[in-house]
Amino acid sequence: MKIVSSAKIRKDLQEQLVQEFPQMNFEFYKSMEEAEASLKTADVLITLGEDVTPEHINSAEHLQWMMVISAGMDKLPFEELKAKNIQVTNARGIHKSPMAEYTFAMILDYARQRNVIRGQEQAKLWNRRVTMTEINQQTLGVLGAGAIGEEIGRIGSAFGMETLACTRSGKPSDNFTATYTSEELHSFLNRCDYVVSVLPATDVTYHMAGEAFFKAMKAEAVFMNIGRGQTVNENALLDALDKKEITHAILDVFEEEPLPGSHPFWEHSSVTVTPHISGISPQYQDRAIALFVENLHMYLADGRFAVNEVNLDRGY
Amino acid sequence: MKIVSSAKIRKDLQEQLVQEFPQMNFEFYKSMEEAEASLKTADVLITLGEDVTPEHINSAEHLQWMMVISAGMDKLPFEELKAKNIQVTNARGIHKSPMAEYTFAMILDYARQRNVIRGQEQAKLWNRRVTMTEINQQTLGVLGAGAIGEEIGRIGSAFGMETLACTRSGKPSDNFTATYTSEELHSFLNRCDYVVSVLPATDVTYHMAGEAFFKAMKAEAVFMNIGRGQTVNENALLDALDKKEITHAILDVFEEEPLPGSHPFWEHSSVTVTPHISGISPQYQDRAIALFVENLHMYLADGRFAVNEVNLDRGY
Repeated sequence: MKIVSSAKIRKDLQEQLVQEFPQMNFEFYKSMEEAEASLKTADVLITLGEDVTPEHINSAEHLQWMMVISAGMDKLPFEELKAKNIQVTNARGIHKSPMAEYTFAMILDYARQRNVIRGQEQAKLWNRRVTMTEINQQTLGVLGAGAIGEEIGRIGSAFGMETLACTRSGKPSDNFTATYTSEELHSFLNRCDYVVSVLPATDVTYHMAGEAFFKAMKAEAVFMNIGRGQTVNENALLDALDKKEITHAILDVFEEEPLPGSHPFWEHSSVTVTPHISGISPQYQDRAIALFVENLHMYLADGRFAVNEVNLDRGY
Repeated sequence: MKIVSSAKIRKDLQEQLVQEFPQMNFEFYKSMEEAEASLKTADVLITLGEDVTPEHINSAEHLQWMMVISAGMDKLPFEELKAKNIQVTNARGIHKSPMAEYTFAMILDYARQRNVIRGQEQAKLWNRRVTMTEINQQTLGVLGAGAIGEEIGRIGSAFGMETLACTRSGKPSDNFTATYTSEELHSFLNRCDYVVSVLPATDVTYHMAGEAFFKAMKAEAVFMNIGRGQTVNENALLDALDKKEITHAILDVFEEEPLPGSHPFWEHSSVTVTPHISGISPQYQDRAIALFVENLHMYLADGRFAVNEVNLDRGY
């Protein structure tokens, strides 16, 4: 069985894989460009996802399984994968720690006016009269559930926040004080001091955060997007900020990435821009490969996956 | 019974007190200077603590109880209070939320290289190759227990950190994986990625964080002080940073406050300075007055206090 990786896997992890599965034929490449020729005879492909085109899938005659070592599925050639009956697994869940840590880093950064305090430090100014807020007793709303949303809810609860979730089903969860269905979106938005979106990019979520969405939020509220840029109508967001329908936006993802230098978000005083870093982690590859190892063991034993199989119809 | 306040109490809280205790004679002043004359006939004094001199205590002929609406007790005239058998209560515990939120704001700020990311934002630079770390699985050590230390331990555990405490007794606590006694300080320091000191200023803690202390810490570790400046030998800390015995210091308190403009901490690339803000909270007075109300009810009923009586021998 031939396993090809077009994702640049760390040397020590490569060696670990070879040692744990001596019966497999591993081929590690630094890019899809290098991997392309081998793809034709590969049974399994390990990829970052973004590098896979419909042509790759069509040319991969033996491919049975594709392991995407990221969580964003939006650029996969779903039609071709379905047509060829190729199974897909991903690395969802491994982002939950760095993304939850990003979320609270940024919420606390905002609540405690870190920007102002740092400016004072640079000016050697000792001034204690900075208006800071506390996050305990504030209401944190998570839009979109899953492992990441649950983790954010769990830590928010530990901080003494009221935690709300809005998901398709509105299914209750221990990590949230209350949950809302998609139909109840506006009642949910109306209660939150912080709205954190972890929504994936799908047909349903496209520009979900638009004019009516921001109008439904509280005027003092902060909107954070760590899901996908396509879920936000960026012009509607700029309008909402300028009309003071919401107070601040913390954005890690954008419709166009890298965010163009001319984009008004960069200089907007009510927008914090970060370069799609919420999921970046030094433990990323270790965790992704650990998931792959778990799935490969079960796949070899009885053709099934232990975790993280992707439903190609839903797109995640 | 006459209750005098030298602390500037918010108007709505003043009214609340008068309404809840109509039988009491309240006198609210904006400063000790204004309050001084009334102090002679006061039974109870509400103060921020720092404004009380031995002369005030000696001149207050009827004083039975002093409510200090802060947690720092180091500037109180203990000898005079003891000699006149005046009971003291304070507001310890009300700082735990803002101080724990400060702690994680700053730990995450450091771990996620917020300073670098913000600099890139100002330069409109989209660069995802910033080396960030995660705090889960890292070891957080709290030096000094009490309500604040426990709260930091509790939230650290929620983040998936290993939490250690070092206290006089080393008494176990649910919020910490392990606890160490003062005698085991160096074994404790040796394990921590982050050391957060919440120590009060006493004879025992004076310059406790000195040369040997920093040598016992890991070279990659970060030292944070939100207790009192007197507990740190600032020259030893600068030495330890310059010799790379520790990596970074986050300091909210200093031997001299405001920190003088000429102090090397301001410009040191491995030091983050904040102006003694960790305990500042918009809910501060509400919480302090709520404690006072609770104690006043019990004091009137049976001459005891419900919470937060200060042991004048120990100094806290």
